[in-house]
Amino acid sequence: MYISPRAKIYTKYISPTAIVLGESTVGENTIVDNNVVIGYPTRRSLRSLITSNFEEGYYELLDKASSGSKIGKNVHLRPGTVVYGRVVMGDEIETGHNVLVREDTVVGNNVVIGTLTVIEGHVKIGNNVRIESGVFIPINTVIGDNVFLGPYVIITNDKYPLSRRLQGAVIEDGALIGANSVLIAGVRIGRKAVIAAGSVVTKDVPSETVVAGVPAKPISTGEKYKKKRKLWEEGRI
Amino acid sequence: MYISPRAKIYTKYISPTAIVLGESTVGENTIVDNNVVIGYPTRRSLRSLITSNFEEGYYELLDKASSGSKIGKNVHLRPGTVVYGRVVMGDEIETGHNVLVREDTVVGNNVVIGTLTVIEGHVKIGNNVRIESGVFIPINTVIGDNVFLGPYVIITNDKYPLSRRLQGAVIEDGALIGANSVLIAGVRIGRKAVIAAGSVVTKDVPSETVVAGVPAKPISTGEKYKKKRKLWEEGRI
Amino acid sequence: MYISPRAKIYTKYISPTAIVLGESTVGENTIVDNNVVIGYPTRRSLRSLITSNFEEGYYELLDKASSGSKIGKNVHLRPGTVVYGRVVMGDEIETGHNVLVREDTVVGNNVVIGTLTVIEGHVKIGNNVRIESGVFIPINTVIGDNVFLGPYVIITNDKYPLSRRLQGAVIEDGALIGANSVLIAGVRIGRKAVIAAGSVVTKDVPSETVVAGVPAKPISTGEKYKKKRKLWEEGRI
Repeated sequence: MYISPRAKIYTKYISPTAIVLGESTVGENTIVDNNVVIGYPTRRSLRSLITSNFEEGYYELLDKASSGSKIGKNVHLRPGTVVYGRVVMGDEIETGHNVLVREDTVVGNNVVIGTLTVIEGHVKIGNNVRIESGVFIPINTVIGDNVFLGPYVIITNDKYPLSRRLQGAVIEDGALIGANSVLIAGVRIGRKAVIAAGSVVTKDVPSETVVAGVPAKPISTGEKYKKKRKLWEEGRI
Repeated sequence: MYISPRAKIYTKYISPTAIVLGESTVGENTIVDNNVVIGYPTRRSLRSLITSNFEEGYYELLDKASSGSKIGKNVHLRPGTVVYGRVVMGDEIETGHNVLVREDTVVGNNVVIGTLTVIEGHVKIGNNVRIESGVFIPINTVIGDNVFLGPYVIITNDKYPLSRRLQGAVIEDGALIGANSVLIAGVRIGRKAVIAAGSVVTKDVPSETVVAGVPAKPISTGEKYKKKRKLWEEGRI
Repeated sequence: MYISPRAKIYTKYISPTAIVLGESTVGENTIVDNNVVIGYPTRRSLRSLITSNFEEGYYELLDKASSGSKIGKNVHLRPGTVVYGRVVMGDEIETGHNVLVREDTVVGNNVVIGTLTVIEGHVKIGNNVRIESGVFIPINTVIGDNVFLGPYVIITNDKYPLSRRLQGAVIEDGALIGANSVLIAGVRIGRKAVIAAGSVVTKDVPSETVVAGVPAKPISTGEKYKKKRKLWEEGRI
């Protein structure tokens, strides 16, 4: 365990193998599991210390380079979760195992971030969001409230790699993105739109619209989707 | 290292950073690697202890909340593998790195579970199964004997998220699922069926049938597949 | 921390939880982060020691079984990265979190290997290569210089699983592979070819050609791609 002298810890449920760096704060009744790191520094700040021939050890290097992060209360950071610096996470958040949340990311309240999900930094996530396992969310992505991202949804931010422009996708409130779908850089997914599993979304999707395929095309409406979901729940389809 | 006073360990190859919780048992000549956790508790049991203001430390919290799991002999749990409680794993099993196996899962003998694979709990896996890296297996999935799941096969269990019905896929004996395929909730993959890489399977697949595409459609038979495989092995295609 | 008596460490930035095995060498100013393992042994060498009833502890077992690896200078191995034995990594390499690099792999200089990427062993990677998160690179893959692999690119090496022939893909210099694409065993991706995101590549792709779809077909040329990228960078598309 390494807890920065600058950090403020308000929970007693913290693993002996956890690392809390910089001016981080951890809220009440939050569980900080095995090998969790809070406030991990960016490459730039690490390298600038090393270039100036930093003389102390590993933990001191990380701590000095860290900007710290803010973790709310009743959060559960499962084993191996790493949160970089300048991250603000709300209350009642649950991460799976080995989740990565990079710098300058803001996460609302009551959010689930599934095992192995990678959030690349400079991302905004609303309230009541459910992100399944293995989701990839790159820089500049914006996710509204009540959004669902199925397992292994892959979001991109560079339409013509390797370009110098990174444009994030925007996912509006209540949108549902099916498993293993790919969102191409800069697409806007409208309110309560539905993306079928395995789609590749190359264009904006209007609100309350269901799309599917490679590339994704409209196949149904939000209204019909809700009816089908009801039949599914009743075991009739 | 934390070994529960309730656990029974029959191997000497256990890392000083491993954690074994609850009434777990670990069989002979099993390797328990760096940062492996056996018997990790469910959210529900952790939260109920915290709500009742549990006063001891982190390991005691995990241990008290744990139901324990049973790991057979000649198993190799590679670094970072986490096994939840009420899991039964047979003999001669090998996990890759950072594998997750959640609660109430049963795994047969002679099974390989690749690096980063996530098994979400309440899953049944037969004997002689080979699961490659990054596979996602959600709640209620049933996998027979001699099945092959290629890398990043994504299985789902909710056809119309976010519904209240989770129906697992059923993969019968000898089926081969190609890389990065998606199985939609509730599909049944017949005996020795073959799913080509990159398919999205929306309907049941009959036994000995080869399907491909988005959505997947029949393109060949098991008989022809075996002939092609022979030609491939001989370097003739 | 466990450092083999046979290892040579030329950096002072090494975590107290790192493990360096066998005759490994680690270059100047390299950062070896939390829970990194260098020189992890193969299954075969571990099992042969156990079968001969090896009597010492866990670290001694790993160390004796390890062949060691060579890590260059100014490398950053982020938390959880595991490098097997007989790996040669050049200088100025950066790995993400929980990266896996298996045995007999050679990596050039100035390479980024993204978080959760799995390199299965017997792989050759050139210089100035950028590999995003979650990429899967199986045995016998060959990757040239200046290649870009987007997030969750899945490469395969067995066209008809479970065959006895593993043929790697070849990705020539300057090729760009879009997110979540699948490369079927043995395909050759020509110089500066571009694979659109979400493609399934079943055949060789000529140099300077853009392909897309399931299965992937030519849709444009390298020349046109560069023009579009310029328009994208200028915010005109």
